[in-house]
Amino acid sequence: MAPMAVTPPTEVEKTSDLTLNGIQAALKKAAPSQNPPTTLTPSLTQPTGTTKPSSSPPLPELDASLLQCTYADPSQLKPVLALDDPERQTQRVSTDHMIQAAWSTTKGWSAPTLTPYGPLSLMPSASCLHYATECFEGMKLYRGFDGKLRLFRPTLNCNRMLMSSTRIALPGFPPAELLKLILKLCATDGNRWLPPHQPGQFLYIRPTMIATDAAIGVQRPSEALLFIILTVLPPMDSVPGGVKLLASEDDMCRAWPGGFGYAKVGANYGPSLVAQGEARARGFDQILWLFGPEGVVTEAGASNFFVVWKEKETGKLQLVTNSLDRQIILDGITRRSVLDLARERLASTSSSSFNLEPLEIQERPFTMSEIALAAEENRLVEAFASGTAWFVAPVSKIQWKGKDIEVPMGEDGVMGGYTKAFKGWLRGIMYGEESERGNEWGVVVGDE
Amino acid sequence: MAPMAVTPPTEVEKTSDLTLNGIQAALKKAAPSQNPPTTLTPSLTQPTGTTKPSSSPPLPELDASLLQCTYADPSQLKPVLALDDPERQTQRVSTDHMIQAAWSTTKGWSAPTLTPYGPLSLMPSASCLHYATECFEGMKLYRGFDGKLRLFRPTLNCNRMLMSSTRIALPGFPPAELLKLILKLCATDGNRWLPPHQPGQFLYIRPTMIATDAAIGVQRPSEALLFIILTVLPPMDSVPGGVKLLASEDDMCRAWPGGFGYAKVGANYGPSLVAQGEARARGFDQILWLFGPEGVVTEAGASNFFVVWKEKETGKLQLVTNSLDRQIILDGITRRSVLDLARERLASTSSSSFNLEPLEIQERPFTMSEIALAAEENRLVEAFASGTAWFVAPVSKIQWKGKDIEVPMGEDGVMGGYTKAFKGWLRGIMYGEESERGNEWGVVVGDE
Repeated sequence: MAPMAVTPPTEVEKTSDLTLNGIQAALKKAAPSQNPPTTLTPSLTQPTGTTKPSSSPPLPELDASLLQCTYADPSQLKPVLALDDPERQTQRVSTDHMIQAAWSTTKGWSAPTLTPYGPLSLMPSASCLHYATECFEGMKLYRGFDGKLRLFRPTLNCNRMLMSSTRIALPGFPPAELLKLILKLCATDGNRWLPPHQPGQFLYIRPTMIATDAAIGVQRPSEALLFIILTVLPPMDSVPGGVKLLASEDDMCRAWPGGFGYAKVGANYGPSLVAQGEARARGFDQILWLFGPEGVVTEAGASNFFVVWKEKETGKLQLVTNSLDRQIILDGITRRSVLDLARERLASTSSSSFNLEPLEIQERPFTMSEIALAAEENRLVEAFASGTAWFVAPVSKIQWKGKDIEVPMGEDGVMGGYTKAFKGWLRGIMYGEESERGNEWGVVVGDE
Repeated sequence: MAPMAVTPPTEVEKTSDLTLNGIQAALKKAAPSQNPPTTLTPSLTQPTGTTKPSSSPPLPELDASLLQCTYADPSQLKPVLALDDPERQTQRVSTDHMIQAAWSTTKGWSAPTLTPYGPLSLMPSASCLHYATECFEGMKLYRGFDGKLRLFRPTLNCNRMLMSSTRIALPGFPPAELLKLILKLCATDGNRWLPPHQPGQFLYIRPTMIATDAAIGVQRPSEALLFIILTVLPPMDSVPGGVKLLASEDDMCRAWPGGFGYAKVGANYGPSLVAQGEARARGFDQILWLFGPEGVVTEAGASNFFVVWKEKETGKLQLVTNSLDRQIILDGITRRSVLDLARERLASTSSSSFNLEPLEIQERPFTMSEIALAAEENRLVEAFASGTAWFVAPVSKIQWKGKDIEVPMGEDGVMGGYTKAFKGWLRGIMYGEESERGNEWGVVVGDE
């Protein structure tokens, strides 16, 4: 058994509802007098994640207004990669700056810093190196065709980061303060790394929190570091010939009820890499993770999975994706946005204005057998994976129990009509070409 | 979805059998020509964890004989803590040196180094900080009453470390080379930190491997770091009044078949901390993790769990612990040793030489209901948790579904007779007071 020590009390519920209400409901059971787990808006001024009794003065909260900036010397700025530079594929290039904020149970949140990008110094006994006390978010910074820099529904990411940090015993923070820090970093490096004359490009944003405790005990961390970096990521939504998925075998399981599959914690990723590597070696792009003896479809790699089929009895077209209630899949922002757009634009006969038949939208557990049967009966219409990195990526094949299920890829063989519609709408919002939803979902980054 | 990139092929099976045969069988399916995952003995000279085709010259293997030593200046050595120093409780104190070895897919294993203990420098995008690509071992260095420094069955730990690294997509290595490095670090710092005139003391040994790739993609790591540190840990096997366990609720689950509960990877630990904190806040020492609707007993915190009871029908005494076959519990070295000693010394009437009745030994899934029924019918004899850090710790109470189950703690109220016997035998072996098993299970650290 690994060592441990007595730790401060905590009591936090899990949630996969990313609205403030949802997270607040999930955190309701936390004992605020003992260990206020977090504040959810900047207007709440209670300290977060501290162990002080409520009679003590509140510890400092994460506060973006205290940011201390040390900019890289202009002579030290990295060369910005050309669009055709092969180094873009390495996923190893970060921009020039990073933001950090340290937290401890005794001092609360320290003033955040913006500094030149560089290494972190961690003691070998740091909790995050042993016990996976770490969580992160994945977002993108988009250079719009209107010249503006935008984030896409970033409040949801910041709320989810709080939910993830809570699940992995890391401190809480006001999500709005995290968003301010992200916006500041994007404003600092965005203009140089996403030049206005190259619209349609993006950077990948990675807010991360790690436990930095140099104590070897298996215990709730008493020190943590929040950091935000921006990296260069190649587009991944145009896999030639479509995404090929290998359905997981009965003896493989990504997440389970009562676990943490719904949270963006490191512990969901490392353990999937062996299976992912096996799938790659066999010519597939990702694992389609099934759950349980019924083969319930959960996630495609680390992305959500959608299928469009004709319902057997009624013949109606349905858009189906797994529901969040068992907490074994991530509440993806892209997933949520696809569902929102589908309900808004495709659920009624008004879908005809997009030259698409209306869809019934279902969030429910569905099985690999249902997909196989739909394919066999020529009712399978299309399927796609959705996520921040892969965006909306059409699926062309699923191998299950040794048999290939071919998934239609639309008339042009590139992607089906619904996949194309979702992709186009989202792209329009992300890159400032659609104002209807764009004003609500897009958050423009201010100039530095 | 988090980003990823195309990765080298791999194919590795999981195992919880820590013999070389067991691990070899589990690794058998790996394609050695593509990606030899590991060598298991130093006599095998194939490279490990490389991505080179077999026609390329083999990459360097982890090789303890190449160790490069840079010792701390005597003036910089830390003061060794007195036995009553409260800092011993913090679990924050490491000894003066550490060992490191870097690995990459292109260069294989670099020459290991022994250096003064100090921080690691990691890029913010390092894989281990995001994706829990990390594993570790827990061992102890014992100062015997015969004046010798000893490890306890360290080969099993080194084999398990290989199994864990394989499960979490980290490189393989010859376990025997890891053991040599551990022995070297123990020989370097053991004498000062475990003075010969203070027998019966121990240090905690933490071999760790982390993925250091500065690439943000969710992919098999191409760079890793193995490091070994020694830390000061307080004894944990004498909880006043015995260990109090809170059985997990139906909506909490530590591990799942097809997952990774059997491996010593970080991903098993961080996600348990919230539940652990809740248990502590309610006055318990640890969670007793149950699995499934039947409430199968798996682990107590991060330790194995044993119960002794009278079988209902036959009235025979049984020692019961969960079996390894579903791969949801750790194959603990202490667990294994308790079972070995029980089979050797207590399974027949020869147990009378220890003033103990013979035991039937059962490794099988058993449920919380069985424990509750045994308690109700006065058939519950004793229970204990076993692990490296907690050693053998008697359990006095289990709360399940709101009801307390009192576990007998022996005639003296400190621990039951079997718990005391296992503890005494193991202590004797660890501290050089028993030669029978001691010569087989104890490995003496050579002098520097």
